[in-house]
Amino acid sequence: MSEAARLIGVGVGPGDPELLTLKAIRALRNADVVAHFAKAGNASQARAIAAGHLRPNAIELPLLYPVTTEIPKNAPAYCDKITAFYDDCAEAVAAHLDAQRSVAVICEGDPLFYGSYMHLHVRLAARYRTEVIAGVTGMSGCWSAIGAPIAQGDDVFTVLPGTLTEDELTRRLVDADAAAVMKLGRNLPKVRRALERAGRLGRAMYVERGTMADAVVMRLTDKRDDCAPYFAIVLVAGWECRP
Amino acid sequence: MSEAARLIGVGVGPGDPELLTLKAIRALRNADVVAHFAKAGNASQARAIAAGHLRPNAIELPLLYPVTTEIPKNAPAYCDKITAFYDDCAEAVAAHLDAQRSVAVICEGDPLFYGSYMHLHVRLAARYRTEVIAGVTGMSGCWSAIGAPIAQGDDVFTVLPGTLTEDELTRRLVDADAAAVMKLGRNLPKVRRALERAGRLGRAMYVERGTMADAVVMRLTDKRDDCAPYFAIVLVAGWECRP
Repeated sequence: MSEAARLIGVGVGPGDPELLTLKAIRALRNADVVAHFAKAGNASQARAIAAGHLRPNAIELPLLYPVTTEIPKNAPAYCDKITAFYDDCAEAVAAHLDAQRSVAVICEGDPLFYGSYMHLHVRLAARYRTEVIAGVTGMSGCWSAIGAPIAQGDDVFTVLPGTLTEDELTRRLVDADAAAVMKLGRNLPKVRRALERAGRLGRAMYVERGTMADAVVMRLTDKRDDCAPYFAIVLVAGWECRP
Repeated sequence: MSEAARLIGVGVGPGDPELLTLKAIRALRNADVVAHFAKAGNASQARAIAAGHLRPNAIELPLLYPVTTEIPKNAPAYCDKITAFYDDCAEAVAAHLDAQRSVAVICEGDPLFYGSYMHLHVRLAARYRTEVIAGVTGMSGCWSAIGAPIAQGDDVFTVLPGTLTEDELTRRLVDADAAAVMKLGRNLPKVRRALERAGRLGRAMYVERGTMADAVVMRLTDKRDDCAPYFAIVLVAGWECRP
C-alpha cells in the first residue's frame, strides 16, 4: 500500500498521452487501485490514454455502464438504472478504500467537467479523503488543434449540449460571443440548422478526436454528411476584429 | 538550435507546477526562446510556474504590457496602445523566428482561452509554423480545488466576465445551469448583487489561487469584505439533485 486510503479523480486530458500532467502521472504511479468508466463491451478511452503510467501491479476496477444511449435519458427506467449503477460503483470503490487502498478514478478531460467521476465524488466525499486532479478538457484540446482563439477579453463563452432543442440552441448561439457545442452524434443536423439560424454557421469549425493523430478538422460548411461521433465538437470562436 | 523555427503557445496550467503537461515540458526544454507576458514591473506568473523546466541557455523575451487597467478598455487610447504593443511583440517574436529560432510563448492556463498568446498567433500564423499546446485552465484548477461538480449531463455552462453590467450578469446567471465568473477585482460587489438577484448567491463559491498552497476558498456568502484580486473567480456549480 503506497499511501493512505484516498479517492482521487484523475483527469488524463483529451486524448494525446503527452497532455497528461505531472500530477496525474504521480497519482497513477502511487494508486493501489485504478478505476475507469466504460460502456460494457468497450475499452476505456481514459485507460488507453493513461496506459503507459499505471503501476504494473495495480488492481484495475472497470466500471461498466449498463446503458448509455439505448434508453431515452428522461425515461424513469434510465434514471433508475443509472442511479443504481452509480450507487454500486461507489460501493465497489468504498470497499477498496475501507481496505486502506488508494483509488484513482481516471477520467478523460477534466474529472468535474461533464464527467462520470463526480457521481462517485458526491457519494463518497463525506466519508473519505478525496482529491481531484484537474485535466486538460476535450474542448481545449480541440481549439488548440485548430489554433482557434476561442474567447478573449469580455467575451461570454458558453458550452451547449447538442441535445437541446433547435430553438434553444439558436437562442443561446445568438446570445454567446463564443461557443462549444458538445454531444453531436445524431444531433448534428439540428445543430447545423441552429447555427444557420443564429448567423454563426460560417464561423463554425467541426472537430473529431482533436488531439489524436487521426484528428478530423474542417469548417462545418465543408462537411458534406451528417455522420458525427457523439464526442465530436463544434466550435464557434469569439474572436472578431480584436487588437 | 534544437528544432526548426516555430511559434509554440504553451499552456502551463493554473498555477501548481505539477499541473504542467508532458507536452509543455518537452516544448520548454526544446525552445530556443521563451517569451512571457507580464505587466511592466511585475514578474510573469507563467514564468514562475514553468521555471523548473526552462533550458539553462534559453533566450528570454519578456513582453511587458504598457497599460493594463489604468485606462478604460473602451477608450481609443487603450485600443491604440495595446494594438501597437501586440504589433511590436509579434515583430520581436518574428525576428527570432526569422533567425531560425523556435519560440515558446508560455501562458497561464490555456493559450487560446482568454489569453494574450492569441494576439501573437493571429499575427504570425500565416507566416510561420505554429503549434498550440493546450493547458489546464484556471477555472478547472479552481473547481477541482473545491471538489465542485461544475457541469454535468445536459447542463449549459457559461463563462462570464465580471466586467458585464449588473443587469446583464443577472440575466445570464438566471439563464445558465452552471457558471464561472472571472475578472472579479473591483467588480465583486456588482457580481454579488447579480448572483443575489438571479437566486444563485447561495450556491456561489469564491476561489483565489485555486491550485496554490495559499489558496482561499469559501462560500461567497461567508466572504465579509469586497476585496478580491482580478484573477479570483466565482463558481456556481450546475449539479442539483442528479443521479
